[in-house]
Amino acid sequence: MRIALLGGTGDIGEGLALRWAYHTDHEVLIGSRDPERAREKAAEYETELSSRGREVTVEGFANGTAADRAGVVVLAVPAYHARDTVEAVADSLDEGDVLVTPATGMRRDDEGVHYHRPGAGSVTELVADAVPDGVSVVGAYHNLPAGRLADLDADLGIDTVLLADDPDAAETVRLLTEAIDGLRPLSGGGLANAGEVEAVTPLLINVAANNEGLHDLGVRFQ
Amino acid sequence: MRIALLGGTGDIGEGLALRWAYHTDHEVLIGSRDPERAREKAAEYETELSSRGREVTVEGFANGTAADRAGVVVLAVPAYHARDTVEAVADSLDEGDVLVTPATGMRRDDEGVHYHRPGAGSVTELVADAVPDGVSVVGAYHNLPAGRLADLDADLGIDTVLLADDPDAAETVRLLTEAIDGLRPLSGGGLANAGEVEAVTPLLINVAANNEGLHDLGVRFQ
Repeated sequence: MRIALLGGTGDIGEGLALRWAYHTDHEVLIGSRDPERAREKAAEYETELSSRGREVTVEGFANGTAADRAGVVVLAVPAYHARDTVEAVADSLDEGDVLVTPATGMRRDDEGVHYHRPGAGSVTELVADAVPDGVSVVGAYHNLPAGRLADLDADLGIDTVLLADDPDAAETVRLLTEAIDGLRPLSGGGLANAGEVEAVTPLLINVAANNEGLHDLGVRFQ
Repeated sequence: MRIALLGGTGDIGEGLALRWAYHTDHEVLIGSRDPERAREKAAEYETELSSRGREVTVEGFANGTAADRAGVVVLAVPAYHARDTVEAVADSLDEGDVLVTPATGMRRDDEGVHYHRPGAGSVTELVADAVPDGVSVVGAYHNLPAGRLADLDADLGIDTVLLADDPDAAETVRLLTEAIDGLRPLSGGGLANAGEVEAVTPLLINVAANNEGLHDLGVRFQ
């Protein structure tokens, strides 16, 4: 399967790219608004993987090209670029494509970081409202620790909650998630349940900020 | 220390009562709107503890009497009774008392359970707005699995996030929490950060409802 990581040059995109390229045989495409930046980061990922004995090709493209070539598109961009990015690549999304959205809205004040719920109910639903007909949206990877995800030496041992209205799309993402060592996919139900998942991201930041020795946290349901 | 559990006859109150009476030497008082009901449940808890070789006195009272006699008061009532209950016992709360609030607002629709954020920002803050001056509010125990908590044979292995603006009150509740085997207290910062913690409770219900084999879930940050 071909997976495009739009915004795959940073943060959560880097970790997912490295983990999929390392643990699976799926083809990973890096997308960025700046195709040169995408190619540079793709080359960095290849070097990192090669240093671990994994010789794979990771290619970089402009977001639209990456989206066009892939069946699963991960929208690994900040929440405030989520809708713009979907609109910018809409012509490259085909019927049957799966769009995965990990973004969450946050605002910081003196007390900490808070969930900034969009009018649509969640960033996940805001993205779902913006995709062309026939494209299935799955909310996933909202609460992952970006640093540990991108460090192939780091054990994860955490969960990610998937939200989907289309069971086939959910199954596709469940399998992709299970393929990453230490990451357990759990279903959170339909897209309408995404807000409660997105709100965990600021909570993880607040907990890390207030407890010595805890940082780059994920969550485990048990 | 004397701990009053208002609404200590059901749900999370039962579990906290049993765990504190079993694991610590703190005196546990059960409060209820119906004092006869409180006495009946207190006697049940004594029988349960006695069957495990723990001979302790657990007394039941009307909520106001329980609150009056205790230095730490846990408001283990449903969210829609939280404010009423505080107002009903306000005269029994003394300066320096610590009021602990675990309630969270939820509403259910066809998709699942959702966080119902009050205008105050959270149920925790709504309670804080209602207490008399000089009483410190700590948000805690929002995301605990009630059934497992009340089953002294069940291992917990989970976290609870404490929210407080008063460091002394936070420390009191941290120590009470640490005294329960398998329950790790973490700081989530000030009361203003409570909404993201309360939103985890409906998430746990949605995850349990959508994944076979998972039920009565707690959360671990790792």
